[in-house]
Parts: sequence; C-alpha cells; structure tokens
Amino acid sequence: MEIAILLFDRLTALDAVGPYEVLSRVPGVEVRFAAREPGPVRTDNRSPLTLMADVALEAVPRPDILLVPGGPGEAAVRRDPAVLDWVRSAHATSRWTTSVCTGSLILGAAGILRGLRATGYWYWLEALREFGAEPTSERVVRQGKVITAAGVSSGIDMALGLVQLEWGDDLARAIQLSIEYDPQPPLDAGSPAKAPPHVVEIVRGAIARVKR
Amino acid sequence: MEIAILLFDRLTALDAVGPYEVLSRVPGVEVRFAAREPGPVRTDNRSPLTLMADVALEAVPRPDILLVPGGPGEAAVRRDPAVLDWVRSAHATSRWTTSVCTGSLILGAAGILRGLRATGYWYWLEALREFGAEPTSERVVRQGKVITAAGVSSGIDMALGLVQLEWGDDLARAIQLSIEYDPQPPLDAGSPAKAPPHVVEIVRGAIARVKR
Repeated sequence: MEIAILLFDRLTALDAVGPYEVLSRVPGVEVRFAAREPGPVRTDNRSPLTLMADVALEAVPRPDILLVPGGPGEAAVRRDPAVLDWVRSAHATSRWTTSVCTGSLILGAAGILRGLRATGYWYWLEALREFGAEPTSERVVRQGKVITAAGVSSGIDMALGLVQLEWGDDLARAIQLSIEYDPQPPLDAGSPAKAPPHVVEIVRGAIARVKR
Repeated sequence: MEIAILLFDRLTALDAVGPYEVLSRVPGVEVRFAAREPGPVRTDNRSPLTLMADVALEAVPRPDILLVPGGPGEAAVRRDPAVLDWVRSAHATSRWTTSVCTGSLILGAAGILRGLRATGYWYWLEALREFGAEPTSERVVRQGKVITAAGVSSGIDMALGLVQLEWGDDLARAIQLSIEYDPQPPLDAGSPAKAPPHVVEIVRGAIARVKR
C-alpha cells in the first residue's frame, strides 16, 4: 500500500511527521513524500526545519492514502492549479483522502469537501465554508473515505484512527505503544474552548501576523 | 536563546520534530539541527523521511538547551566518542539538557545521568542502569537541569513542560493551543501497562528484530 504525503514550502512539520510516524509503522506500506519538485522543503517556523521530498507529484499519481498537511504555505498551494489537479486526481482513485490542520483548506480548494462536514485548524475553521464544507470543531471527522483532522498535533490521533479502521484495533494499539503515545500535557489548553481567553487572544494575534 | 537538536542517522523523526514544533514557537529562540556533518540525515523507518542538519556539532558548542532524540541509530552514537564529547561539553554549559526516547541512553553514555532518576523508551528502560541512572517509567523526569522523556511522542509533553518552567504557564498554554494539542487517541494503549499483554508482546518482538 502506497501513502503519499504532500510537502510544500512553509508547511508545518508536525502536521506531516506525526502521521508519518504512525503510518510508516504499518507492515507493508510505503510512504512517499511528494512535492512539485523533489528536494528540500522548508517548514514554517523562524528556525526552519528542512524535510526532503523524495518524489515529484507525477511519480505518485494513484496513492492508496493521500495525506495533505497544513501550515502557512497552504495559501500558496491553494493558488497552484498543478497541485490542486494532483490532489483531485489522487483523490479520484484513493482509498483514503486525509488532511491535517489547514490541509483541509487545500482539500476544499480542490473541491473535495463540498457538502461534507470537515475540521481543520481552529483559527481557520470558518474558512472551510467557502468551499462548501460544514466546519466542525471535532478533532477528527470522517465522511466516507475523506478524513480531516484539527490542528497540527491532531494528525497523530487521525493516523491512529485510520490504522484502526483499515488494519484493526491490535495494530493501532501496537503502533500507539511503539510511539509510546500516552499523552500527558502539563497544562490543559489545547483547544480554544480550554485555553484561557487571554491566551486565545495572544495566539490569535500571533497567527494574524503570519504572512500567508 | 539557542537550542541544539542532535541529529544522527536512523533517529526517530518524531523524537526531534515533536519538541521542535513546541520550542521553535518560543519568541526569540533559535533552533539548530546539529549533526557530525551538515546535510541530510535519514530517519529510522522502512519508508525513510530525511531531515536536514543545518550545522556541524562544532558550530554549536554552547547551546542553552540541548535536546538529544533517540531511535535505532542511538546505539551507533553511543560508540562515537566525538558525539559523546560534544554532548558532554554542551551539557557543561547548558541551561537545560534534555532527551527523548533512547536519547537518554546517549546522555547516559556521556556520563550525564550518573546517580540521577531518568526515563526513556519503555523497552530500553532497564539499560539506563548500566550508566548509573535509576530508571523510572514516568513520562517526564526532571533532575536539576537534566530532563529525560519517555518514548517518541513524549517529547511534546516534555517540551511543553520545559516552556512552562523557563517561560511560564501562559506561553506554554499559548504554544499548546497553537499546535492544538488536545490529544484524543482513539484507543488507550500508549504504555506497556495500558496495552493488552498480547499487543505488548507483538511490539517487543518487532523491536527485538530491529538492527541496532
């Protein structure tokens, strides 16, 4: 089974690497990091991490699982017809089409979310409406073969759920144990409903200043 | 403030990228990915992800925060006096010295854990004893300026705790919200105490077959 993870400049590293760490542990799968051109891709923070795309998009036309991460660079991806065409075409034959964070806006721009419930990064959730999707703040939303996940770290939960759906509970548990995913965040502020209002405002302000 | 994340061949990607995604969001920090030589570093799974080391070890002799990830490649790192010397020397002047997963075995081999309580990947926990450490299965263990974390995904919790210690609760909450870290794993098998015994045996068998 082939899994294609889309890479693009200024993606958020954990959006891609969280699900990668889960899905690459499924026996028999092959994960490909696909970008417009193979080679280095810079991620989104001030101290950038560089990931390598090992193949061009045209080298993985029909992945079984498509995973689209997000990050500030998604706005440029949504203006790139070549990438949207690839996403649309990969989705036509995929077994599962998935996104993490603002990756759902890319799926939306490709026309994949019309009439579907979908999630994504909390700050950009309402933007899903312009693509005909119905936004929801659930962490992982499955609609047929389309699975969208909330922001950044949610890709780990999404990928474990996908392993459970496709390969069963025991493999999902084995992979959860193999990445020792027994989360114990020291504070409880992982959603806008849980974080104190002044913290939500700090983060809103920081996001509003990010160039897209 | 400078943060150095050690990279080496066959590291586990999420060990490094989880804490990176947290720490790189602290205003004013600079994260450097340091390896014996700058350039591409392959991670540990069958479908490898390649991360780029942007600097050589000697370019970051005195990081304020040292982070040592783990992965199957750590066994080779422990046999490499040049890397152990760098770890030891960076630790001498660091503000915080941290590890994720089997990265604690590297700290141990560098002589940093003698007489300290420490954690690490559940499968290799007892191996910490050979370095004079007292293993514990807690998720994050702080002993003075040394912080060790359990397997793979625990680096996210560790890094948020470190932000809390160094920069306070509000920044830790803001970063938790910015990565939407509100974990909802679909199953509850993230530690050997929680996973069913037959699943623990499957994972033990798989780890025993990994070349180190």
